[in-house]
Amino acid sequence: MRKVAVVGVGETKFSGPQDRTEVELFGEAAMEAITESNLKPKDIKALYVGNVLGDFSEGQGMVQSFAAENIGCRHVPANRYEGACASASMAVRDAFMWVASGYYDIVLAGGVERAATMGTGLATRTFAMFSDARYEYPAGITFPAVFALLTHLYADKYKIPLQKLREQMARVSIQSYKHGAINPKAQFFGKNAEMSVDKVLGSFVVATPLTLHDCCPFSDGAAAVVLASEAVAKKLTKKPVYITGTGQSSSGPLCNQDDFLPRIRAREISSKQAYDMAGIRPADVDLCELHDCFSIASLIAAESLGFFEYGKAGEAWEKGQADIGGKVAINPSGGLKSKGHPIGATGAGQVYEVVRQLRGEVEPGRQVPDAKIGLTDTLGGDGGTLVNMVFQRGW
Amino acid sequence: MRKVAVVGVGETKFSGPQDRTEVELFGEAAMEAITESNLKPKDIKALYVGNVLGDFSEGQGMVQSFAAENIGCRHVPANRYEGACASASMAVRDAFMWVASGYYDIVLAGGVERAATMGTGLATRTFAMFSDARYEYPAGITFPAVFALLTHLYADKYKIPLQKLREQMARVSIQSYKHGAINPKAQFFGKNAEMSVDKVLGSFVVATPLTLHDCCPFSDGAAAVVLASEAVAKKLTKKPVYITGTGQSSSGPLCNQDDFLPRIRAREISSKQAYDMAGIRPADVDLCELHDCFSIASLIAAESLGFFEYGKAGEAWEKGQADIGGKVAINPSGGLKSKGHPIGATGAGQVYEVVRQLRGEVEPGRQVPDAKIGLTDTLGGDGGTLVNMVFQRGW
Repeated sequence: MRKVAVVGVGETKFSGPQDRTEVELFGEAAMEAITESNLKPKDIKALYVGNVLGDFSEGQGMVQSFAAENIGCRHVPANRYEGACASASMAVRDAFMWVASGYYDIVLAGGVERAATMGTGLATRTFAMFSDARYEYPAGITFPAVFALLTHLYADKYKIPLQKLREQMARVSIQSYKHGAINPKAQFFGKNAEMSVDKVLGSFVVATPLTLHDCCPFSDGAAAVVLASEAVAKKLTKKPVYITGTGQSSSGPLCNQDDFLPRIRAREISSKQAYDMAGIRPADVDLCELHDCFSIASLIAAESLGFFEYGKAGEAWEKGQADIGGKVAINPSGGLKSKGHPIGATGAGQVYEVVRQLRGEVEPGRQVPDAKIGLTDTLGGDGGTLVNMVFQRGW
Repeated sequence: MRKVAVVGVGETKFSGPQDRTEVELFGEAAMEAITESNLKPKDIKALYVGNVLGDFSEGQGMVQSFAAENIGCRHVPANRYEGACASASMAVRDAFMWVASGYYDIVLAGGVERAATMGTGLATRTFAMFSDARYEYPAGITFPAVFALLTHLYADKYKIPLQKLREQMARVSIQSYKHGAINPKAQFFGKNAEMSVDKVLGSFVVATPLTLHDCCPFSDGAAAVVLASEAVAKKLTKKPVYITGTGQSSSGPLCNQDDFLPRIRAREISSKQAYDMAGIRPADVDLCELHDCFSIASLIAAESLGFFEYGKAGEAWEKGQADIGGKVAINPSGGLKSKGHPIGATGAGQVYEVVRQLRGEVEPGRQVPDAKIGLTDTLGGDGGTLVNMVFQRGW
């Protein structure tokens, strides 16, 4: 298999309700990525797009075909991927394989969503369909409830008093707000920079013990990346970022995972695949964009990814070990919590951030110094899909 | 890239409303394919599933993850593909690449749908979202209307009196009913074997000039295939069927294609890719399962695939040139018209039929004698997605 590089990235601002269609949002991100790659739309040989709720939010299925034609990529293969929140990461991973195999030299991958346009209430109820339709959401278990239950389980398993755990979780949100406040693409740009533990704990309860500030928003937005073979990449850019490892895993109903919870088995399998393929260890990772749909999700993820011992991630956040200058810089973009969460685009947004970090291009205050290796981590549903990818500087 | 073979196939009966979930339907087809391949679920390294309306028909998104766990393929990568009716073909083509690249040796691909469960009226309205949401279905143009308009355009362009064209189209349906009537997996098994031109023309009008018998049903059903590398395939079966060519293309809104219509540009691009990759010509194809969602669609498809001259496909059907014993055997399964159309499973169902035809395993009366090369053709929406694949006997 050939080496595959990211040669260009693009992203809309992640935001509340937009008055543009998904085709238009994707077009903005895609054209930014194509232009940055010194390419034209006609150079793109195939399109891989994550999208989850488009049928519901604006009544457009098969959005990828209309999105392709809209940017002038006429008659290319165009696939839509659905793996809940991990849809765009799934799309990028498949795009990677079509280039690695030698079949295509240049492809575009990304995602788009208008989840905010649906309104939080409707989006939450609709998105619950991406958990198990037999045993979970008919019982009232929407995703906030899943992660509330996991919080109790985490506290119990690692014998951390719930109030103590809630304070640690608050630190996760505070760090995310801090970075998002200085990320112009973030939904909460310029907001919540002065968040405190008391403010997080005192905000309204979404699902006990999770409060508003423990939960990410639903967002509108799109992100896209251009992938190319090594030979082509070297002609297009002086700063190719190589995808050196990928992993993917899945799980069925949460009730089947009970012995393992609150750990997510799919993540441990997926990340091991990615690390092994790249030939690296967790300690080699300089920064990680991980799936912090809820603050507790960050603790669970960071442990399964091998950054901290089980039950110890909260302490790590308290000590700054999960921040820039610590052991690993987690979510310097602001993460889902502050950058935002346009469901089917989120994974591509993570890639956008990691690539720009490795290039040293992000705003002062949230740039990870001399970052060489980045990891993405995207969780779809409550373990249904897990995708990890390792990115490394190619210069 | 390595050679890739189909080593096992499975399919549920295509039917009206089922009382089983998509997870259960897919499980039946998948286990049939795995068992036929002399494998166990643990041997499957990844799952690729087409599904379009599952969120609507039974409120289950990300069905592939639950389907994977249900059959004992735990923690494998599991992707859902959506390209309207071409979803499963898209899934099979991506699965092909993951094996061809050398990454996986054995994978499962297929599709599942419960479109009949939704009821024809609701399914038609819901599925209209897979045309263009800006200019098409808001104008009242559901898919029956699209193909009704194409019928008028076809008659006009090739100067065929509409009544004459309708009679030719009736011949398409009659041939499909004839084969479906003796295909036990077909929705219309045992039905409509004695259809006549008068009966087709006299059935109730769906969208002028299309009558009931010009239109395929919506169906419930699932189909799955196991793909393996050449080396593995030779150990598993004495009758490997190789995928020797694939092609895929897309189009945007129908209104952008006006100069080209009623031809579908995406099909001509896609099929050329598949033929070129396989190193064959249309005349080499012994049988073809093509996307006859409406009788007029068969004429349009057969011409774009290079079997007959433009405007002459109707005559070919009248003369038996599209039947077994003619120039190319089209839809010996009964096609979408008579075998049925479980949207997200249809492409995998076509592969099921072609593989069994090449093995010489189908029922007398619809077996194509000594078939060596088969083609699949799946249309998603009104040109949004087009996938073609060439299959050849490996013994």
